[in-house]
Amino acid sequence: MISTKLTELLGIDHPVVCAPMGSVSGGRLAGAVTRAGGLGLVGVSYGDAAFIDEHVAQAAENGGVWGVGCVMFTFDERPGLWDKVLGYAPPVIALSFGDAAQVHKYVASAADSGAHVVVQVHDPEQAAVAVQAGASVLVAQGAEAGGHHASLATLPLVPAVLDVAQGQVPVVAAGGFADGRGLAAALALGADGVMMGTRFAATEESLATAGFKSRLVSARTADTVNTRAFDVVRGIPWDEAYQARSVSNDFTRTWTGRDAELAARRAAVEPEWTAAVARDDTSQRAMFAGEILDLIEDIQPAAEVVRGVVADAEAILTSLARRTGRPASAA
Amino acid sequence: MISTKLTELLGIDHPVVCAPMGSVSGGRLAGAVTRAGGLGLVGVSYGDAAFIDEHVAQAAENGGVWGVGCVMFTFDERPGLWDKVLGYAPPVIALSFGDAAQVHKYVASAADSGAHVVVQVHDPEQAAVAVQAGASVLVAQGAEAGGHHASLATLPLVPAVLDVAQGQVPVVAAGGFADGRGLAAALALGADGVMMGTRFAATEESLATAGFKSRLVSARTADTVNTRAFDVVRGIPWDEAYQARSVSNDFTRTWTGRDAELAARRAAVEPEWTAAVARDDTSQRAMFAGEILDLIEDIQPAAEVVRGVVADAEAILTSLARRTGRPASAA
Ligand SMILES: Cc1cc2nc3c(=O)[nH]c(=O)nc-3n(C[C@H](O)[C@H](O)[C@H](O)COP(=O)(O)O)c2cc1C
Ligand SMILES: Cc1cc2nc3c(=O)[nH]c(=O)nc-3n(C[C@H](O)[C@H](O)[C@H](O)COP(=O)(O)O)c2cc1C
Repeated sequence: MISTKLTELLGIDHPVVCAPMGSVSGGRLAGAVTRAGGLGLVGVSYGDAAFIDEHVAQAAENGGVWGVGCVMFTFDERPGLWDKVLGYAPPVIALSFGDAAQVHKYVASAADSGAHVVVQVHDPEQAAVAVQAGASVLVAQGAEAGGHHASLATLPLVPAVLDVAQGQVPVVAAGGFADGRGLAAALALGADGVMMGTRFAATEESLATAGFKSRLVSARTADTVNTRAFDVVRGIPWDEAYQARSVSNDFTRTWTGRDAELAARRAAVEPEWTAAVARDDTSQRAMFAGEILDLIEDIQPAAEVVRGVVADAEAILTSLARRTGRPASAA
Repeated sequence: MISTKLTELLGIDHPVVCAPMGSVSGGRLAGAVTRAGGLGLVGVSYGDAAFIDEHVAQAAENGGVWGVGCVMFTFDERPGLWDKVLGYAPPVIALSFGDAAQVHKYVASAADSGAHVVVQVHDPEQAAVAVQAGASVLVAQGAEAGGHHASLATLPLVPAVLDVAQGQVPVVAAGGFADGRGLAAALALGADGVMMGTRFAATEESLATAGFKSRLVSARTADTVNTRAFDVVRGIPWDEAYQARSVSNDFTRTWTGRDAELAARRAAVEPEWTAAVARDDTSQRAMFAGEILDLIEDIQPAAEVVRGVVADAEAILTSLARRTGRPASAA
């Protein structure tokens, strides 16, 4: 048990958040993390009514401190889906990837619903916007993250965001965390917790397919690549500031850096690609994963991840205090 | 005072290393860091006989635990300069940017001289090569660093390198550190210390020009850019795996991403550029700085940097141990 402004605000035991990963963080994974004392978030992402009715409903039934994560820019066209999410009254709503106007709009709406509102940011300017919009928690996400991210690395980003937040709201560090060393480092930097994606994708409860899980274990960090190819083939209009880190495969090797050509040939490429994804073809499918992949050696139960990360971080922080030569009690 | 495998091996007080920055870390800066209880390294870099005779000599006269840093690939053509460096019997020799054969060759030669040999690495494979070659310390340098760097970020890189080093040699973290939060985070990750470049460039003792120092204070992280333009205009044959992060200016805005064209027009561009550098024209000169620039607010005496970083890290580690609820003495 490590107490921080995040654990106090949300009333959770451990400062560990499961990232709201689209198609990966379902009700079962979110529930397992919440029951283990962390914060489980369902990855609503681009919003799919059937997914919400299955997985958000499941998390809501499980109860505890759970939440959802939504990619803001994709909800504007489909207000019905946002209302559907709010209908489940999630205690926590995490928002990512929106411009300043979208941040103001979705933070206000989420806060009106009574939820704690978490906003993911990628630079100090976005942090200032989120604080001004009324976010109750910031996630500072660095470029080593799996999935979509901007360009600044977590280590310099977190203190810069903390300096903007000035203690008004807890700051969670994301991107590059997978073990107790990482949680201890995030807390030492001044963050109030960590959000982990890649590590929780490699759990028993995650919805990652068998093929994806097996590559999460076998692939190394050197096998990952930043790409827009999966966004282009899916026709999702991501801002070019955000690339997605994925395990490389034949599809990324063929199409990364050829966005315009892929967009032009989408009608021909997309059906075949979608069919390949449906049969879990790892040479074609997206397998988002971050630079921390070198540390992922196995598929674990999510509760085991939470327990191990927290226990190791506690042991590290306790032993480091001894190395400073100042007794903790005297400081 | 924080004791680590690095401080024990080298016999220094604090696990803080001043990066061997070319044209920036001279004898005065290295000496100030060494006297403050850290490890000061003179940036010999590409090797310049006059610089060595002035600055390495100065560091040698000052005594204490000091060292030099050399960019391996540039020394091959000029064996006389390497011998000149060895002639000053530096207690520590830091080596950066070489292929496996160069790592083996320079580590062996440096170790023969009786020095502790520090090798900077950018991925776990390079770490394995350096350990095998007999390095006594590894520096794991992430992509948020000022100056030249590869692509992996410090936060995921450090634990991956520690897992290769397996406690055989101390590992120093570099890239993205500027304050006590950073040192505390590096130690929590398991590193044995930090090497800081950008922070020490912004000190009274650094050889950075007045124009460069003023931009180190006024520029923000968002004003930095990764570029090869300065290497191309100087005609230094850097491997394309290594870009250099610099404060952006008219020169980077004009030439970044146009390497082949700049190389072709070098005869025309270079004399004018060199003249601009000579008059400290910040619209043209290289001003290497990392993603931690948002945290640099002032030019400090180097000893003040060391003192502040160590005192803040001690206070953080002591207070974090209390937050775990386990007393440091009981663990
Ligand atoms: C498989 C996967 C899917 C992701 N999907 C989303 C998503 O739908 N929405 C989102 O905001 N972030 C998404 N992310 C990013 C995470 O929210 C988080 O910021 C990131 O995983 C943190 O970095 P890490 O992977 O190093 O832990 C995804 C990440 C992964 C690994
Ligand atoms: C102004 C400047 C000059 C540098 N010159 C060199 C150099 O000549 N040789 C070298 O190995 N590294 C050089 N570096 C990189 C540093 O050794 C170190 O890895 C880096 O500064 C660490 O990241 P930080 O800037 O975030 O502290 C330089 C960095 C800076 C900021």
